[in-house]
Amino acid sequence: MGLAEFGRKELTLAEHEMPGLMAARKEFGPAQPFKGLNINGSLHMTIQTGVLIETLHALGAKAGTATVFAWKGETLPEYWWCTEQMMTVPGADGCDQLVDDGGDATLLVHKGKELEAKFAKDGSLPDPASTTNAEFKCVLQVLRDSIQADKTKYTRMAAKCKGVSEETTTGVHRLREMAAKGELLFPAINVNDCVTKSKFDNVYGCRHSLPDSIMRATDVMIGGKRALVAGYGDVGKGCAFAMRGAGARVLITEIDPICALQACMEGFQVVTIEEVVGEVDIFTSATGNFKIITLDHMKKMKNNAIVCNIGHFDNEIAM
Amino acid sequence: MGLAEFGRKELTLAEHEMPGLMAARKEFGPAQPFKGLNINGSLHMTIQTGVLIETLHALGAKAGTATVFAWKGETLPEYWWCTEQMMTVPGADGCDQLVDDGGDATLLVHKGKELEAKFAKDGSLPDPASTTNAEFKCVLQVLRDSIQADKTKYTRMAAKCKGVSEETTTGVHRLREMAAKGELLFPAINVNDCVTKSKFDNVYGCRHSLPDSIMRATDVMIGGKRALVAGYGDVGKGCAFAMRGAGARVLITEIDPICALQACMEGFQVVTIEEVVGEVDIFTSATGNFKIITLDHMKKMKNNAIVCNIGHFDNEIAM
Amino acid sequence: MGLAEFGRKELTLAEHEMPGLMAARKEFGPAQPFKGLNINGSLHMTIQTGVLIETLHALGAKAGTATVFAWKGETLPEYWWCTEQMMTVPGADGCDQLVDDGGDATLLVHKGKELEAKFAKDGSLPDPASTTNAEFKCVLQVLRDSIQADKTKYTRMAAKCKGVSEETTTGVHRLREMAAKGELLFPAINVNDCVTKSKFDNVYGCRHSLPDSIMRATDVMIGGKRALVAGYGDVGKGCAFAMRGAGARVLITEIDPICALQACMEGFQVVTIEEVVGEVDIFTSATGNFKIITLDHMKKMKNNAIVCNIGHFDNEIAM
Amino acid sequence: MGLAEFGRKELTLAEHEMPGLMAARKEFGPAQPFKGLNINGSLHMTIQTGVLIETLHALGAKAGTATVFAWKGETLPEYWWCTEQMMTVPGADGCDQLVDDGGDATLLVHKGKELEAKFAKDGSLPDPASTTNAEFKCVLQVLRDSIQADKTKYTRMAAKCKGVSEETTTGVHRLREMAAKGELLFPAINVNDCVTKSKFDNVYGCRHSLPDSIMRATDVMIGGKRALVAGYGDVGKGCAFAMRGAGARVLITEIDPICALQACMEGFQVVTIEEVVGEVDIFTSATGNFKIITLDHMKKMKNNAIVCNIGHFDNEIAM
Repeated sequence: MGLAEFGRKELTLAEHEMPGLMAARKEFGPAQPFKGLNINGSLHMTIQTGVLIETLHALGAKAGTATVFAWKGETLPEYWWCTEQMMTVPGADGCDQLVDDGGDATLLVHKGKELEAKFAKDGSLPDPASTTNAEFKCVLQVLRDSIQADKTKYTRMAAKCKGVSEETTTGVHRLREMAAKGELLFPAINVNDCVTKSKFDNVYGCRHSLPDSIMRATDVMIGGKRALVAGYGDVGKGCAFAMRGAGARVLITEIDPICALQACMEGFQVVTIEEVVGEVDIFTSATGNFKIITLDHMKKMKNNAIVCNIGHFDNEIAM
Repeated sequence: MGLAEFGRKELTLAEHEMPGLMAARKEFGPAQPFKGLNINGSLHMTIQTGVLIETLHALGAKAGTATVFAWKGETLPEYWWCTEQMMTVPGADGCDQLVDDGGDATLLVHKGKELEAKFAKDGSLPDPASTTNAEFKCVLQVLRDSIQADKTKYTRMAAKCKGVSEETTTGVHRLREMAAKGELLFPAINVNDCVTKSKFDNVYGCRHSLPDSIMRATDVMIGGKRALVAGYGDVGKGCAFAMRGAGARVLITEIDPICALQACMEGFQVVTIEEVVGEVDIFTSATGNFKIITLDHMKKMKNNAIVCNIGHFDNEIAM
Repeated sequence: MGLAEFGRKELTLAEHEMPGLMAARKEFGPAQPFKGLNINGSLHMTIQTGVLIETLHALGAKAGTATVFAWKGETLPEYWWCTEQMMTVPGADGCDQLVDDGGDATLLVHKGKELEAKFAKDGSLPDPASTTNAEFKCVLQVLRDSIQADKTKYTRMAAKCKGVSEETTTGVHRLREMAAKGELLFPAINVNDCVTKSKFDNVYGCRHSLPDSIMRATDVMIGGKRALVAGYGDVGKGCAFAMRGAGARVLITEIDPICALQACMEGFQVVTIEEVVGEVDIFTSATGNFKIITLDHMKKMKNNAIVCNIGHFDNEIAM
Repeated sequence: MGLAEFGRKELTLAEHEMPGLMAARKEFGPAQPFKGLNINGSLHMTIQTGVLIETLHALGAKAGTATVFAWKGETLPEYWWCTEQMMTVPGADGCDQLVDDGGDATLLVHKGKELEAKFAKDGSLPDPASTTNAEFKCVLQVLRDSIQADKTKYTRMAAKCKGVSEETTTGVHRLREMAAKGELLFPAINVNDCVTKSKFDNVYGCRHSLPDSIMRATDVMIGGKRALVAGYGDVGKGCAFAMRGAGARVLITEIDPICALQACMEGFQVVTIEEVVGEVDIFTSATGNFKIITLDHMKKMKNNAIVCNIGHFDNEIAM
């Protein structure tokens, strides 16, 4: 079986598991609500995203929508280059709608417009050296290059964009901050707080993904291990029950007293990382915050301890 | 509703929950296998024991079988007085069969014959002052009184008894020791190791009874509490899952490495009492051993800690 | 130990389990925020309510607050007589604040003022014969008697009351309806939707209470039984996990698709009562709605099926 | 990283997870109990088997032991060719000890000696056409070729072999049958019934492996699915709890009444395949028996139903 055939088979299997999208094709396909629109997205490149893309097509979105910029082992500069390519629509100022996941595309267009305005005002270009944050350096480099080629690319793109959907707790948090400061350039749909997202994807999706990832990556038995989950929000709850279901002893760290009390009432041991760092076998960070598992923690860990991040950004763990 | 009517209603409800005994009535009732036999028992006086007694009758056992010697708040001397009464069959040397639960009746008849032989040999009577064990003092007193009234009562009783059934791990352990020394006076049926006993009563019966007892006795919420179960045999397994099912965090003490490893693999925290005694809310002893929870432990417990014994004998806890 | 001493001991034990109230005594006791106020309540008469009453005293509420009108085996007319007594404050028009649980006291004062107004307008008295609802008949009788004795008792009472707190989903629902129609006579505090109520009391409180009640009332083993829980809201979730934790096979009925999907994702079987009514051993109604388990259902149930209601009102089950 | 380096890293990680073997190296290494012995095995070719092989070396077994005959995608004839190669020791009549897993090597040596004796008696060669069983055809072909090349190869091999260890329920069952008929040619060590095998590998190993395999092979979410486990022995118990832990609704088929009752007491639904075959999403066969999931069943399954076998032989499922 060739790669294309294998991929098509995987899509068919995934369609079966995504009855919502399939029903949308059936119900809204005839009306073609997305007819002629460019809907561009910044998403994890999975089979399931493939089903989403084909669904957008089925509802009328333009064929060009399906150009994918991504490859295995991308570097950070490559990732941000890809993000810019994704948002660039040949023959148009930009896409009509944005499907974002974590807010990177949204960040780029906002920063782009802001820095184009700054350049228009005082002629100053974005300076990657002005930040120590590795990721933000790439953003500034992309925009520096872009402004030199086209002074209003992102300003026009922002004007063209009718709205963005955002599906992560972290991304929504960013959007709320921008909205509060009056800096949000277009309407945003909060997909994350939809109950079918936060109470299903976050809880049950992570309950599935965490043991799946640990098993594939390490071949280590989870049963009998001490598993610490940092954060007992929806994602952390799913992780905690996944680890218990696989036979691990589960410990929780949590700074929110309500969530910490929920962990207690479910029989989980609530601790600080510091108390237990030397005895834990599997660490999972699920906080949506950063600097959760530090170099200092790692120095005190057991040999062969496993460290995972299931929060949106990888800066939950000192890499 | 009068007490008798209430009791009959409770028996009817219990019959519904005891399909095995009811099937025995139906299958073996016509053949009357226990016709004319005295079958006497030393059992917990519950509604379920009532259904057992009525089943023995239905299979032909004598009416006198159902005289019950027991009352709420019995003292130790009263308990052993009751045990002797239960074993005394008017107009006969003793019962034909014994149904024992923990081995107390079996102990009494064995000690009785032994001490009657001693008395026959050297004229010495059992001396309650010769032991510091409160329970054994009562046994010796009962036998001292008995020998003075009838020099061969227990010797004849032992000869008459065709066998005993025993349903506890502890009682079977005692029987094996007697058999190994050649001192067992009649055959014994090991009911305990029947899979429907050890893997059901011990596990699932205790899973039910432990929270039931804690709830009735204390009105305290189990969820969120730290519950230590001492012993992870069949009984301890049932207790541990009951406490987890009710939302407690469960800690296990266990000296057998296999059982301790099973507890680990189920995600329970395995500890020594000493490490955690000051933090535990509910202690449950389920070892079949003794001196598990000592006065010293109690001095270190939290205010309002709950201490339970679900092992056969109450000497698991220093009372 | 006398009854009073036993009760005091129970209060002391309960205080230990209610750290929130005890902290309130410590933090707010010195400021006496309720000084001189009459705070009257319509609550389940438990030891825990006793701790609440003593806490209100400790914060300054009047001693008279603690007169309790309730006894075991109350009839419906007696219940509503008690409700009126509770709301009647000697030497004042009524209480300053109301603590309600299910909305009965709130209902009485609202109906009272409404029917006093009607009487003032056209001289017509409330007529118990005008309704077939057994409970509402009692309300009308109480008000009929009251108006004949004092034409403005409830109108003055409503004016005096500064507000009500309500702690059930059902009661809050009633309050929202009154507020929407502009008929709510005083402000209401929604205690129910406080996260520490709905996500703790409703879930974990019921997880504790359901097996507790079944065990005490029936002495029947829950393990191995088929347990249907009607409703998978917060209360139903607690019930479902309690039954699973006790070893039952759990079936759920639920009309809300999100909650039904949550039940599926937790591995519960989602059904309609009709499909399974003849096979279920334990029915628990937890919907907050009414006519859930009907006479027709009962006719199809197994002999000895157990039927429980853990929703607020007993009309979830046809009695 | 090259393949050899990657493999060595995997071995190092696996050693960490296999403390028993590592302790054996430390405790028995100096005494070299296997010095000069050929210990040959028929085992699944995993990293963990690699650690076992290196442990045998560390205890003195001959270097030649580590020649591995196996490759991905082996056909049945190739598999049996490999089995013969594995048992052939250059310069010796055969191995000193056999490590078997499922009993294939044991079967081959027994059949070999039997058919060599038949050939010696009447000159008849094994005839692959005499059986319709695809696997047994291969066995007969291997032996037909062997006898033509060396008339007493397996007879000498059987004489040389001091014993076999067997680690599966299925293999032990075969050995007991041979022993009962007096046909077992050398002593056998029953590793399977060692408590650390049957109560750990079978239960907890399978609890890990089943979701691991489903996740890797299908990328399908287990939560919310209906999962049928055929057989509720130790392996089935592990599978059932794995599926429940991952959020599936679990149904059990079981012909042994004790095991079926255990499943009930754990809250699993006990059914026949026929009743539910059209509604189940994931089938797992764990019986140790054969013809469990038939072609007829498959015709009635849902589209995209997943069918797994975790019993020893693949004939649990009609392939």
